[in-house]
Amino acid sequence: MEARGLGNPALLAEVAGAPADQAPADQAIEQWTAILGANHVIVDERNRTAAETATFATTQTIPAILRPASRDELQECIRIANRFRVPVYPVSSGKNWGYGSRVPAADANVLIDLSRMNRILDFNEDLAYVTVEPGVTQRQLFAFLQDRQSRLWMDATGSSPECSLIGNVVERGFGHTPYGDHFAHVCGFEVVLPTGARVETGFCRFPDAQAGAVYRWGAGPTLEGLFSQSNLGIVTRMTIWLMPAPEHFEAFFFQCNREEQLAPLIEALRPLRLQGILRSTVHIANDYKVLAGIQQYPWQETKGETPLRPELMAQLRSRLKFGAWSGSGGLYGTRGQVAEAKRALRAALKGKVDRLQFLDDRRLAFASRFAKLYQFMTGWDLSKTLDLARPVYGLMKGVPTEQPLAGAYWRKKSVPPSSMDPDRDGCGLLWYAPIAPMEGRHAEVIAGITHRILLEYGFEPSISMTLITERSVACVISICYDRREPGQDDQAMACYLRLQRELTEQGYYSYRLGIQAMSEMNGSDGYRALVRAMKEAIDPNSVLAPGRYQPT
Amino acid sequence: MEARGLGNPALLAEVAGAPADQAPADQAIEQWTAILGANHVIVDERNRTAAETATFATTQTIPAILRPASRDELQECIRIANRFRVPVYPVSSGKNWGYGSRVPAADANVLIDLSRMNRILDFNEDLAYVTVEPGVTQRQLFAFLQDRQSRLWMDATGSSPECSLIGNVVERGFGHTPYGDHFAHVCGFEVVLPTGARVETGFCRFPDAQAGAVYRWGAGPTLEGLFSQSNLGIVTRMTIWLMPAPEHFEAFFFQCNREEQLAPLIEALRPLRLQGILRSTVHIANDYKVLAGIQQYPWQETKGETPLRPELMAQLRSRLKFGAWSGSGGLYGTRGQVAEAKRALRAALKGKVDRLQFLDDRRLAFASRFAKLYQFMTGWDLSKTLDLARPVYGLMKGVPTEQPLAGAYWRKKSVPPSSMDPDRDGCGLLWYAPIAPMEGRHAEVIAGITHRILLEYGFEPSISMTLITERSVACVISICYDRREPGQDDQAMACYLRLQRELTEQGYYSYRLGIQAMSEMNGSDGYRALVRAMKEAIDPNSVLAPGRYQPT
Repeated sequence: MEARGLGNPALLAEVAGAPADQAPADQAIEQWTAILGANHVIVDERNRTAAETATFATTQTIPAILRPASRDELQECIRIANRFRVPVYPVSSGKNWGYGSRVPAADANVLIDLSRMNRILDFNEDLAYVTVEPGVTQRQLFAFLQDRQSRLWMDATGSSPECSLIGNVVERGFGHTPYGDHFAHVCGFEVVLPTGARVETGFCRFPDAQAGAVYRWGAGPTLEGLFSQSNLGIVTRMTIWLMPAPEHFEAFFFQCNREEQLAPLIEALRPLRLQGILRSTVHIANDYKVLAGIQQYPWQETKGETPLRPELMAQLRSRLKFGAWSGSGGLYGTRGQVAEAKRALRAALKGKVDRLQFLDDRRLAFASRFAKLYQFMTGWDLSKTLDLARPVYGLMKGVPTEQPLAGAYWRKKSVPPSSMDPDRDGCGLLWYAPIAPMEGRHAEVIAGITHRILLEYGFEPSISMTLITERSVACVISICYDRREPGQDDQAMACYLRLQRELTEQGYYSYRLGIQAMSEMNGSDGYRALVRAMKEAIDPNSVLAPGRYQPT
Repeated sequence: MEARGLGNPALLAEVAGAPADQAPADQAIEQWTAILGANHVIVDERNRTAAETATFATTQTIPAILRPASRDELQECIRIANRFRVPVYPVSSGKNWGYGSRVPAADANVLIDLSRMNRILDFNEDLAYVTVEPGVTQRQLFAFLQDRQSRLWMDATGSSPECSLIGNVVERGFGHTPYGDHFAHVCGFEVVLPTGARVETGFCRFPDAQAGAVYRWGAGPTLEGLFSQSNLGIVTRMTIWLMPAPEHFEAFFFQCNREEQLAPLIEALRPLRLQGILRSTVHIANDYKVLAGIQQYPWQETKGETPLRPELMAQLRSRLKFGAWSGSGGLYGTRGQVAEAKRALRAALKGKVDRLQFLDDRRLAFASRFAKLYQFMTGWDLSKTLDLARPVYGLMKGVPTEQPLAGAYWRKKSVPPSSMDPDRDGCGLLWYAPIAPMEGRHAEVIAGITHRILLEYGFEPSISMTLITERSVACVISICYDRREPGQDDQAMACYLRLQRELTEQGYYSYRLGIQAMSEMNGSDGYRALVRAMKEAIDPNSVLAPGRYQPT
């Protein structure tokens, strides 16, 4: 193995306190290879370069990629990392697009790819849970449930079927069903600490505990929170709660033609969410977001100019028949409960939206068969709408889809390939995801700032607003571009920084941070000092994902 | 001030590493007095002895009681404790009956009574939350909401109106509404660390954060769990989410005449809870628990003998018209939703229960006025039932009540005083609260073990089972006795230890631990080592509540 196989051996050696010519990282590689076999210690340039590539500019190098197959192997890898003071950076499926993909927060981290640890360890139909390892993907769990003809639904995030379930939970991602706040619907973690020691959370730490998979808090301090958005441990097992398929499911879709309808819309939805009439997350997207779901950038209409101006956007809206704001959500329950929720929703949105449509399995099947006739009867161009609605409809029933991922190719000049890989394909994507109280005025302020800044920097102000809990809205703002266009990486990052500054000045902080934005973690001195003290206590050699969600 | 005012000054001095005759704790008392004033540094024997008294035998002494009025004063108290290495033990209202009341887990801790920190700091009717200090009681919040004619309901625990809200949340207590899992419905903690430093959780750590009171997780590691059931910090502020009063509320009460109906009952209720048809906790109590809610021990019928034998219990059941198992829960929603939930509940419980009754405000008012007529019409002795039902009905609407507290006087030979104080009045009470998966077989095993052991040790096997989450049951087993009866303290503790041993051998662990039971915390080595490392990092002088939820 060549020295360059370790990226920057001099730096690593310095960390280990050894002279540069002894290259302790070389020794680490040797020991890792002895444990994992040469096939699972990847040092070739092509693979390393791929892993060093995100959807925005990064400079971090990855000296090697380790692929342990089990928790024991992982623990051994971590112990070796400690022995030689080589920093390691774990990823589950590594599909953290828009936030850094697989790229470590700091330079010269050895990547630990957990995708081979992909067993479904436990499943209980009656108590409605599944226990998984970090390599288990959305697609895998969905197929598992289908195979068993389970009446349980998972909650899927609208990213890719190949995303890790655990990876998304520990990043506190969200989905579309009543279990949409992912981190609130899990328990019983097994964690490998930065020293290689193993810890279980909740009741799982007790021998033969009966309630380890059904009750989160356990006895004593509750530790799950420490291992989400952190560099304090690697989650190697987690129980994810599933929802029983309801007797009846119905989706709703609504549309507001004017931008200024957003605030009253949020005000109208909040009581329904607070009262449990709407039990799931509700997603609201602006016109730019919807258009990026329908097609790529309209290069012809714009004659190749960017960004897409609001005036042209308005024309496209009326031509393609979508609103300034479009929304969707699911109604879950008995037939009677769903009917009652429909009634309440209709009453609440009356005068607030320009269109409100309901869709269930029967109508979807019917409409798919008779789209033309339906259009004739109702004037609604159903086939196009159905193509758009079907994946969203599926997500509300926990069916993973690849469709939203195509949006990452928005600014590309060729169509998305059949096997999409935004990192490989030079898709530019930066996400900022501020949380706001569920009040119209906040939504309005965030939309306004986003609109102004993104257009100013030459990007389309694409926003979604998810009523993620009973009281809060998660806004996802996408800065979407083509990394192959010269200068765009810098321009996008400048735009991100400006957006972040203006939003945080107004008190809107992101619920999730990209690897380029970890300095946003800091906040007050007290929190910083506390997390730092815990990091030192838990990771004395600072080998685990240095810089990741770590205050400075 | 006399030396004995500090309990065991020699021990304290040793802790501080100073010779015994210098009594650093005396110096600490001097400095605390300078900060708080002499009125709020309590060293008189009567008050100390009262604070040293729980509902079971303890030996811990309390050298002094500090009563800070503000967070600043509290921080100063903690800094002084560090200066002189004097351990301190915080209580909010100190009403942790059955788990140790105000008595510290270790000897010679100075008590910090937070009841003067009782401000309601923020309130938002639209977003449905309130932000409180640790001294704010259930009664205070209820009155606050009434005064404002708020349409928000709090969740009350069935202990006492004088209980601290924060105290109950950090102990992870539970209540009766859809917000019954208290720890799941809070966010934005402010915490004073064992060093005196201040930390805020979630978004609250950021300047001017808008979403600090509405979104729990924030960005980066989530820390709330560290400060529940722990000795890692003192929670000095917390946002508690409130539920909007539903359009309609209806309570249900059911009864099973035979013990063996428990398992099928739980099986019938689980799908309703999982499907969100029952959105709140459901409480099921056995005959012994119900009887203790109606009256004190039947000394006459038993001719003074204890325990109350199952044969006599069966006679009392049929005379007083209650079942082997009695249950209650609430239905919340629109009129249509409640009607739909009633239908589903009736269908699910058909053949599983011997009686199922519904009660709403209208029927309660009507029944209260026409109880006799109603009895004539329905054969149901309403007035007695109403007396029992009213407080439970109120709890389901978030109305605190003192009624369940009277149960602590079960074995006393005189009636409960108008101002109840179980510690002062020698009420013996030990609680063990195992969590089980929501399956009939688990409930049956726990009920069986409890029945056998408690009767064997001479106590009544009083059990409640709360469907606390969608998948789990919290069982509360009461060992209730008269501390003034010689030998009963020892007998009760022996019973507790036997019960704990047999239940944990079967894998049923308590969700909450009394001060006498902290060794149950231990579990696996990994968890122990991790919590210990954090304790050392966060509390280097080990001044905060040593031993409390601390693995050994």
